[in-house]
Amino acid sequence: MSARPLFVVAGVGNGSGTGAATARVFSKAGYRVALIARNADHLKRTAEEINAAGGEAAAFPVPSYAYGDVTSVFDQIQSHQWASGGRTELRVALFNAGAGVWKPFLDVTEADVALITETNITAAFAFSRAALLAFKQNEVDANGKRGTLLFTGATASIRGNVTTSAFAAGKFALRSLSQSLNKEFGKQNIHVAHSIIDGGILTDLSLSRRQGDPEWKNNGDVRLDPESIGKSYLYLANQDRSAWTWELDLRPAHEKW
Amino acid sequence: MSARPLFVVAGVGNGSGTGAATARVFSKAGYRVALIARNADHLKRTAEEINAAGGEAAAFPVPSYAYGDVTSVFDQIQSHQWASGGRTELRVALFNAGAGVWKPFLDVTEADVALITETNITAAFAFSRAALLAFKQNEVDANGKRGTLLFTGATASIRGNVTTSAFAAGKFALRSLSQSLNKEFGKQNIHVAHSIIDGGILTDLSLSRRQGDPEWKNNGDVRLDPESIGKSYLYLANQDRSAWTWELDLRPAHEKW
Amino acid sequence: MSARPLFVVAGVGNGSGTGAATARVFSKAGYRVALIARNADHLKRTAEEINAAGGEAAAFPVPSYAYGDVTSVFDQIQSHQWASGGRTELRVALFNAGAGVWKPFLDVTEADVALITETNITAAFAFSRAALLAFKQNEVDANGKRGTLLFTGATASIRGNVTTSAFAAGKFALRSLSQSLNKEFGKQNIHVAHSIIDGGILTDLSLSRRQGDPEWKNNGDVRLDPESIGKSYLYLANQDRSAWTWELDLRPAHEKW
Amino acid sequence: MSARPLFVVAGVGNGSGTGAATARVFSKAGYRVALIARNADHLKRTAEEINAAGGEAAAFPVPSYAYGDVTSVFDQIQSHQWASGGRTELRVALFNAGAGVWKPFLDVTEADVALITETNITAAFAFSRAALLAFKQNEVDANGKRGTLLFTGATASIRGNVTTSAFAAGKFALRSLSQSLNKEFGKQNIHVAHSIIDGGILTDLSLSRRQGDPEWKNNGDVRLDPESIGKSYLYLANQDRSAWTWELDLRPAHEKW
Repeated sequence: MSARPLFVVAGVGNGSGTGAATARVFSKAGYRVALIARNADHLKRTAEEINAAGGEAAAFPVPSYAYGDVTSVFDQIQSHQWASGGRTELRVALFNAGAGVWKPFLDVTEADVALITETNITAAFAFSRAALLAFKQNEVDANGKRGTLLFTGATASIRGNVTTSAFAAGKFALRSLSQSLNKEFGKQNIHVAHSIIDGGILTDLSLSRRQGDPEWKNNGDVRLDPESIGKSYLYLANQDRSAWTWELDLRPAHEKW
Repeated sequence: MSARPLFVVAGVGNGSGTGAATARVFSKAGYRVALIARNADHLKRTAEEINAAGGEAAAFPVPSYAYGDVTSVFDQIQSHQWASGGRTELRVALFNAGAGVWKPFLDVTEADVALITETNITAAFAFSRAALLAFKQNEVDANGKRGTLLFTGATASIRGNVTTSAFAAGKFALRSLSQSLNKEFGKQNIHVAHSIIDGGILTDLSLSRRQGDPEWKNNGDVRLDPESIGKSYLYLANQDRSAWTWELDLRPAHEKW
Repeated sequence: MSARPLFVVAGVGNGSGTGAATARVFSKAGYRVALIARNADHLKRTAEEINAAGGEAAAFPVPSYAYGDVTSVFDQIQSHQWASGGRTELRVALFNAGAGVWKPFLDVTEADVALITETNITAAFAFSRAALLAFKQNEVDANGKRGTLLFTGATASIRGNVTTSAFAAGKFALRSLSQSLNKEFGKQNIHVAHSIIDGGILTDLSLSRRQGDPEWKNNGDVRLDPESIGKSYLYLANQDRSAWTWELDLRPAHEKW
Repeated sequence: MSARPLFVVAGVGNGSGTGAATARVFSKAGYRVALIARNADHLKRTAEEINAAGGEAAAFPVPSYAYGDVTSVFDQIQSHQWASGGRTELRVALFNAGAGVWKPFLDVTEADVALITETNITAAFAFSRAALLAFKQNEVDANGKRGTLLFTGATASIRGNVTTSAFAAGKFALRSLSQSLNKEFGKQNIHVAHSIIDGGILTDLSLSRRQGDPEWKNNGDVRLDPESIGKSYLYLANQDRSAWTWELDLRPAHEKW
């Protein structure tokens, strides 16, 4: 009996954003999904929803995005006993975690810098290492892949700006990591890709900040739908070995950029 | 009765490359396909093959990629009577034409510069204008689009190099055109995208240059499959309005870059 | 007796902009200056002003920026007899010509595209060829150079935008040319550089458009001084062989970008 | 009596590289120089050499590049009593520190990541903050500046590669910081710039790695001279307010890139 593919995502938030939507997309595509985030309650709820919809999800809360915590949670995921039994192979991993700090530079504190570097850089290194080690155990699949490692970037991945001195530092670093890994692991048939989300995403948070504005909620021309982002990740994971994308950008049709 | 979607591609070569492969991909996806190229014989054969496979293709040879010739051929396409009848709507257009000049700069002649600017720039402006004018007549479809305009780029789209002074000039210009158009026409729900093909493509020409090397022919890790490029164009054409990509890169898994 | 260094600039306009200011900077630094532009009257006046200030300038009007016209004018420059006699060596050449077309894409005509490609691309290839052939005759100077070829870029060199489909195409192409040439001719100790002017420049034209606004005229924080641009070109020309710049950007202190 | 300008540099190494060479360049240009590095002995020797050459230098060793240590050393610098007396104003600060880790990704340890983030990111934030706070106390000088904050980048600032997953992460982050700060502080007439050093630098270390290869030592075509880098920093510091550079690249004439 062949192994069930596993999708791991770090950074699931309250379940209304990119991480959770991507988990749902991969669940529908036949993947088991392992969810990593800091808030255990939200995480549990998101897993339950996926299971209720006929998928197979498990929640893996982490106390922090410190290097050791990320490494530990991957060990738990690898040894997890899935209810439906059988063997599991990690095939796709999405690093979607990240802390945002938007403030004038002179208001950026030592703690802000520590948060940005831990969440965007240190955690990303630990996550990538664990995912890549797992991928190296896999056979090459029908698309010529051992695994796909995905990173969520932002406008700040390619442009520093007046209130993004801290956030952009983390996002630039993450982008460079994805490029280095793409070049290093492509030869081993491991695909590493980076997505630049260049616009606002429809989430509970972004909607509440706009007082439930129906335009923001319903008009796909002006904000990103998390599910659409998730579908782009599924597309990347399914690219065959002859034509892999390192980076693509995503923005709403009417976005000014 | 609803209209049949039309896919137009300029730059089909001898039928073994990106343009023709993309036409086959869109044909299988239900599009009528209009093929533009300079070599009428090759073009006719490619159209016949698509028709024999159950698609609906027509060949539109052009004497040159001069501005007027490109404009004229679009008029022919718009007034073409398709065998199966009914109304047609141009929905996707791919500018895949382009002349390559690879030589030391001091060997680049005035004629080389004229060729590069006509094929990569002048033709692209004429092609884009005709496609955009057609798209503006369309209603927005289920994905929130009036049309998708695609451009094929290359490594030389983002990097000048020692033998690419002429070729890269054309490809940089084409890339900038795609970015300007993306920003200008997104607001009208017309999607413009650019693909950076960063590696060798399996074509009759690239295969013959390698004396039929079976590694080049069969190993998807080392060269791009034109059909895989075509599938990426179909993916771009199907992106919904909330998450459009302007640019993605494509290369084989083992490409050194 | 050693040769007098010659500075050639194409694109001098009415004498109030970057081309003329750079000519004055190089004149003060001891260069003979050859001025190329389309308007013979303006050109003559600028040359006379430089001569009146103790420099040695000559005007070389061109009927157009067609390939042959640019080649011809270089022949005239090379055979020009300078009043003060002695031998001349072309040491620095600045391609500052360029036509700007800013309009919605659907208003861009075939003639606009022809103008942009001729002025920004065809002329640049002809100018570069003539300058490089001249440089190759030179001995390496104290800084390790046979010559310096400079290009004036703009914001549109790195970013297409809603009204710059035509202009940016030309500027992207020019930038790529400069990069290709830098890589190809560095090995021959010929230095090629590109400058991104990312802001408005104080010229007669920009001042008149603002009705002589004293803020624009006097406040260096908000617009570029052409002389400051000229000084940056002199700096680039004087860089020693161990540390050459391909590209730098220039903008006023208060520019929003 | 007017204040003496002060140049501060972090990252002086053994005195044969970019940091020390730039200190010598600024010393000759009339600046007092404050040297920050981890190795107190090397630092003292470099300061003594500058003083022996008629300059005025002081050494400020730091136990580490932790946030607090960098902040502390700036306090020491600000309260330092210079032998020749009079008032001092910090006018130029160069962040030249940085740890390099070049190894396959799976060999990169948690400690490596911590080193990279502390040295390239955390220290850079602390250094920038201290420098910017000092600059804000200054009057605008004749060039329209309150101060200039400079960062040393590398090839890895713009390109991740197979052995640079860690190093490039730090350098990308540093570059983004410099861009954010340029945009935020330009309006306050504080100039922030970034230099991409895209080639090998002649230092004691690079020379010993090549067993004293005379070609490396003497041929300016193949490696960067630290003094030339220093002169580029002096050029940047002297740019007038109407034409500031955020970023330039520097490489030897014969560098393949």
